[in-house]
Amino acid sequence: MTVNLSPPDSLLPINGIRLAATAAGIRYKNRDDVVLIELAEQTTTAAVFTKNAFCAAPVVICREHLAEKAPRYLLINSGNANAGTGEQGYQVAKQTCELVAETFGCDAEQVLPFSTGVIGELLPLQPFKTALPSMPEQLSEQHWMQAANGIMTTDTLPKGISKQIEIDGQTVTITGISKGSGMIKPDMATMLSYVACDAKLDQARLQAMTQRCTDTSFNAITVDGDTSTNDALVVMATGQSGVDITEANQAIFEAALEAVLQHLAQAIIRDGEGATKFVAVKVSEASNQAEARAVAYTVAHSPLVKTALFASDPNWGRILAAVGRSPVDNLDVNQISLFLGGTQLLEKGMPANDYTEEKGQAEMNKAEIDIGIQLGRGDASATVWTSDLSYEYVKINAEYRS
Amino acid sequence: MTVNLSPPDSLLPINGIRLAATAAGIRYKNRDDVVLIELAEQTTTAAVFTKNAFCAAPVVICREHLAEKAPRYLLINSGNANAGTGEQGYQVAKQTCELVAETFGCDAEQVLPFSTGVIGELLPLQPFKTALPSMPEQLSEQHWMQAANGIMTTDTLPKGISKQIEIDGQTVTITGISKGSGMIKPDMATMLSYVACDAKLDQARLQAMTQRCTDTSFNAITVDGDTSTNDALVVMATGQSGVDITEANQAIFEAALEAVLQHLAQAIIRDGEGATKFVAVKVSEASNQAEARAVAYTVAHSPLVKTALFASDPNWGRILAAVGRSPVDNLDVNQISLFLGGTQLLEKGMPANDYTEEKGQAEMNKAEIDIGIQLGRGDASATVWTSDLSYEYVKINAEYRS
Repeated sequence: MTVNLSPPDSLLPINGIRLAATAAGIRYKNRDDVVLIELAEQTTTAAVFTKNAFCAAPVVICREHLAEKAPRYLLINSGNANAGTGEQGYQVAKQTCELVAETFGCDAEQVLPFSTGVIGELLPLQPFKTALPSMPEQLSEQHWMQAANGIMTTDTLPKGISKQIEIDGQTVTITGISKGSGMIKPDMATMLSYVACDAKLDQARLQAMTQRCTDTSFNAITVDGDTSTNDALVVMATGQSGVDITEANQAIFEAALEAVLQHLAQAIIRDGEGATKFVAVKVSEASNQAEARAVAYTVAHSPLVKTALFASDPNWGRILAAVGRSPVDNLDVNQISLFLGGTQLLEKGMPANDYTEEKGQAEMNKAEIDIGIQLGRGDASATVWTSDLSYEYVKINAEYRS
Repeated sequence: MTVNLSPPDSLLPINGIRLAATAAGIRYKNRDDVVLIELAEQTTTAAVFTKNAFCAAPVVICREHLAEKAPRYLLINSGNANAGTGEQGYQVAKQTCELVAETFGCDAEQVLPFSTGVIGELLPLQPFKTALPSMPEQLSEQHWMQAANGIMTTDTLPKGISKQIEIDGQTVTITGISKGSGMIKPDMATMLSYVACDAKLDQARLQAMTQRCTDTSFNAITVDGDTSTNDALVVMATGQSGVDITEANQAIFEAALEAVLQHLAQAIIRDGEGATKFVAVKVSEASNQAEARAVAYTVAHSPLVKTALFASDPNWGRILAAVGRSPVDNLDVNQISLFLGGTQLLEKGMPANDYTEEKGQAEMNKAEIDIGIQLGRGDASATVWTSDLSYEYVKINAEYRS
């Protein structure tokens, strides 16, 4: 099930980024499962990884390699997450980097490995040995769609977007792809996203911007609150458009990058496990951002709110109860107002006068639902996107591995 | 569905406590839905309520009345939670207390009201007016079972226990009842529990003890993380056994009280929404209690762990991922060991040598499952009890109100 999601019509090439995808047979048969992304020299790279303490071997190596050298190659496999695999898993991931280094004549530290798929099984090295020799000739700037398909695990659709903006009279192009189907797919436990642009940014600026945009995109989505051992986002700037992003012109670029990341993040929710609804939880009038996010996540994670959304039941008591148990000190319920789309449920703690079950039902029947929560405590706001909790979610997660 | 839960065979009377239950027709037909508990003079009362900021009208009044006077009557109705009902709901709850006060010739402040059932509907006063006049003659020390049945909403079984201990050569009796089916039943949003003993305790000692025992019982269970607007626990001490609980002998009494509260709390999980498993998440070797509880709750709330439990799937990657995302600073995965019952899954961050899928499967097939998590950081420990996440859970919560 997906909610208003289509595969991208086309993805624009980025000068300085070449991609290849091939079927190595790691887990799936007859589909691409190894993707290689080549970054031209001078490309700067920012990356954000899972905060899970049990992070997978490739994540550990990515952090180590990024501390050493600027990356030239990203090696991504689907079908096996190489997580929970201990020292052996670490060594295999290292060896895949060395294979890429031998193939292209670079240092192993210039290769970043990414894995997504089943947790707790050792990643086999042989498929990489077999597949890599033919990959150099497959590299092309036109292969973004192939890459979007190759990184999928149980996603039902590939996810990607391109966006062009004018900066200082010149065109800057941003193209990104993502995978993930639920914040964490049963054992297919990973959100991965790769975004490239042809603008020029120094690494520190790119990293700071990536972090800020992640907070309002990938860090603002949730299916079930579970974060994976492998989550990674990489943003690359090749500089080949000749457009320099500086303090003066970075706002327009950052807005475009944020829009791309939000699209890619929301696509994951729209393709979420068993999702039948796409829900935005919008908290406003909070004392601060952290408080706004805490309330939004409490509502977005509530199984009772999520089952009511699945049932299209305008059961506002559940939203009220979730807001009430949010980890916020001294919440004054007499200042809180609740909305379902354009329909007011609660006005400063009291049932809204003109609310009717029919109005609530009409809002709940929609596939895209906004839950608005005004706390009446300040000016901060936050939005979290989530899906509902359906039979299908339980089915997928109960039956997937067994 | 229940997991190893039977109704109590019998519940022992407590001198000084009389109970009555009657069918007032508030929501249900042909079953008791109003319960009255009379406390003898000199009885001390401790109470713990929901921390939900949107607490229901009766909870607000309980707090106000407890601050004024020692309670003589508890009035409990099922079928309607009188929550989300604003000022009108508050006034109706006040009026029910006044009706009891008129009937028994006490002050309205000596009456505590409790409601459980549907949220967001106004509690009707008429059923109380009709039912109360006949209740004085129905009061009896023998009516604990009737009370246990009368406070049920969608519980499938009544919940109660009696326990006797010897203190200073004399017998002390504790009897308690609880209701709740899930931490929060769809709109039937309440955990309620009433426990009485014939020991003598001053209010401050009883309140402190109740708070401590709640932390390891009712505050250590979870179905879905949602806490209700109406949750309440009341512990009464009539003193009529003549046994004085003092600093010197309170340990034995507190252990018995804790056992009673744990039984009543666990019974709620065993009767949890769609529960097919009864699961204890035991975290040890934590730096402190708060940390141990944080890890235990993260695992107990994880939808992926809960669906794996439902599927009897020894999918330890999900437990590992949940531990890894617990809100604990500087978690060193190389110190963490995991167990399913007697079977070790992970030893200091590495897959346990003698683990086999068969051993994991044998543990997961059980109806009662222990998840053991050793953090290797200290001496603190905590246990949280929970259930699995089944189709039935979604069905109950999606279809209940509609």
